[in-house]
Amino acid sequence: MTQVNPNYLQIENNYLFSKISKEKEKYINKHKKNDLIDLSIGDVTLPLSKSCIAGINKASLLLSDSKTFTGYPPSSGHDFLKEQIIKNDYINLNIQKDEIFIGDSSKSDISNILDIFKENITVALQDPVYPVYVDSNILRGNKIIYIDNLDTFLPCNEKIDIIYICSPNNPTGNVIKKDTLKKYIDYAIENNCLIFFDSAYEAFIQDENTVHSIYEVENSKKVAIEFRSYSKTAGFTPIRLSYTIVPKEINLNLSNSLTVSLNFLFKRMKDTKYNGPSFLSEYAIYNTYITNSKKELKDNINYYLENTKLLNDFFKTRNMSTTSNINSPYVWIKCNMPSWDYFYYLLENYMILGTPGIGFGKSGEGYFRFTGFSSRENTLEAIKRLEKIKPT
Amino acid sequence: MTQVNPNYLQIENNYLFSKISKEKEKYINKHKKNDLIDLSIGDVTLPLSKSCIAGINKASLLLSDSKTFTGYPPSSGHDFLKEQIIKNDYINLNIQKDEIFIGDSSKSDISNILDIFKENITVALQDPVYPVYVDSNILRGNKIIYIDNLDTFLPCNEKIDIIYICSPNNPTGNVIKKDTLKKYIDYAIENNCLIFFDSAYEAFIQDENTVHSIYEVENSKKVAIEFRSYSKTAGFTPIRLSYTIVPKEINLNLSNSLTVSLNFLFKRMKDTKYNGPSFLSEYAIYNTYITNSKKELKDNINYYLENTKLLNDFFKTRNMSTTSNINSPYVWIKCNMPSWDYFYYLLENYMILGTPGIGFGKSGEGYFRFTGFSSRENTLEAIKRLEKIKPT
Repeated sequence: MTQVNPNYLQIENNYLFSKISKEKEKYINKHKKNDLIDLSIGDVTLPLSKSCIAGINKASLLLSDSKTFTGYPPSSGHDFLKEQIIKNDYINLNIQKDEIFIGDSSKSDISNILDIFKENITVALQDPVYPVYVDSNILRGNKIIYIDNLDTFLPCNEKIDIIYICSPNNPTGNVIKKDTLKKYIDYAIENNCLIFFDSAYEAFIQDENTVHSIYEVENSKKVAIEFRSYSKTAGFTPIRLSYTIVPKEINLNLSNSLTVSLNFLFKRMKDTKYNGPSFLSEYAIYNTYITNSKKELKDNINYYLENTKLLNDFFKTRNMSTTSNINSPYVWIKCNMPSWDYFYYLLENYMILGTPGIGFGKSGEGYFRFTGFSSRENTLEAIKRLEKIKPT
Repeated sequence: MTQVNPNYLQIENNYLFSKISKEKEKYINKHKKNDLIDLSIGDVTLPLSKSCIAGINKASLLLSDSKTFTGYPPSSGHDFLKEQIIKNDYINLNIQKDEIFIGDSSKSDISNILDIFKENITVALQDPVYPVYVDSNILRGNKIIYIDNLDTFLPCNEKIDIIYICSPNNPTGNVIKKDTLKKYIDYAIENNCLIFFDSAYEAFIQDENTVHSIYEVENSKKVAIEFRSYSKTAGFTPIRLSYTIVPKEINLNLSNSLTVSLNFLFKRMKDTKYNGPSFLSEYAIYNTYITNSKKELKDNINYYLENTKLLNDFFKTRNMSTTSNINSPYVWIKCNMPSWDYFYYLLENYMILGTPGIGFGKSGEGYFRFTGFSSRENTLEAIKRLEKIKPT
């Protein structure tokens, strides 16, 4: 029988969030009721904004008429949306249309792009970190070095091929300072390595001096790829839309001292393995851009941030909070016990679901993640339940 | 600098249809007008059916209200649609919900699934064939054996890991007979190989005795994966929806004489690298199923088939037709010259775009593909232009 890629036997049997969702199901079946408050998966709960819904309706009208129907999108998405991305999200950053690849999911892009590189390369990941980075690198047989502290990690005495930076970080909510990021860019240029910058949560940044895009840092276009998603920014989790910026300046060396453009290879991969994003989803956010309705999105983000702040404020009273600055929809707390123990403790006694920190890497042990994505009502109810825990 | 996967340097610089679209653009720029009739890419032109549009509008309503809003889909899509697929597309074939993986594109599934297997395996592909099969296998470093004739290919004296069968075939339109398919299933079981069955064009089948699904053939669930797409069936090219069936009976051997389920590995891959299909697209086709509106889709398919027949009838008069039975939206003709020469000949003299047969593999040289996906008007105009060519 056709043989299995041995790397597939090296990852955990279950993806972290599939495991949590199974535990949730088990609880509901056991107790024959769902009195749970789910603060685990980072999934939005507010409905799509009015301008997005209007965009979907406009798009469906266009697709219902042969005069305005369009078929396959380009594999990197339509220019009409790329123009708005440049105009709204990359003001004065000189990003070109053919450097933008619109897709259905950052998760797909960030894991599939590894296919372009040799197997068994070395990558540096923050710990704790989004588990997709870990799993997708294990699937390529890559060696993973963990970054405990971004400020002290460099210089690294091992040759690294790719450094991943997620800012604001999932799960901790920490942001990288501009001057630290500058050090990473300089290091990457000097040491021929790439930087994958995941800014899925940039819309949540409150600190005024924090960069939203890595391209705000000088010379970054020589080495950095940026991943962005509308999932959290615009509440698009059900309708799938994201984009990846691959600057044309990034060249990869071939063994024969020639170079090849990463942008060219990424496009070639997309052309072969992908058929582009949905016109309906593109049009939803396009309509928000062209009708200047970004405030609707901002209002939703502020709602989630307020939930997050309420949770964090509670944990401050218990000395379990790890941050004073909220720049993401996540609360990362010290739970003072193994994180899966805390998971079952909260589930069985307080009917609250969260995410065990260990699921994000070994530095996450003893920590726990809550999200601000629930409703205000549920968030307040969760806090009420948590308040019943005796302070230690 | 991070090193490139050498397989990426082995594929053609341009994906076939990107190359054709560049030539089209060049023509329009040169002649400062677009008087072309495009019969090249297999892309639909009729608007979405009424029931699909109604489905999109219902879904957008659900997403506009917090009481009915749903976030991330399961990575294999929602059960509500899987139930309809089983009920409508796999009547009496005993397909289970957890064997169905709904996604945004067959192209993605059929290329990404190779990641689960070791590199450098051996695959057998029909020649001529959809170029994505070729490119995605080159990207894995796989050895490709070409099948000139499905009827005489077996037994093959080389060890094959995967056999691809596309029926109705793109580009030739040929269908595989049920008893031939049975031989492939038996061979695969006996020789521990897998069959990838691409039935993207099953809705176009006119021959009553031709199978629409490989699961109509006995024992096929032990070795066969089926890929289906709504792109041509429901005109979904702009809104992206497809599904893949991975039966739970398929087990892969590990070196230690244990086995692992391919269904499990495929789910694990999807969980890590994919976030599921768009709710809007799922709901569009769901609405067609539940309102018994499949006739709307059938009418569109008949429209394209009639175009295809008109083209084929013309080429019959020139003895260039290769088929008498229309079972796909494609006309595959013998063009009696190198196929790229014929491409430029038609483009420059008759303002008609088609697809050079050689783009589908070396057996395609001397052949040419037209599609029935244009409007009736354009199809008839193309025939009028072609009629001006002096018969040889």
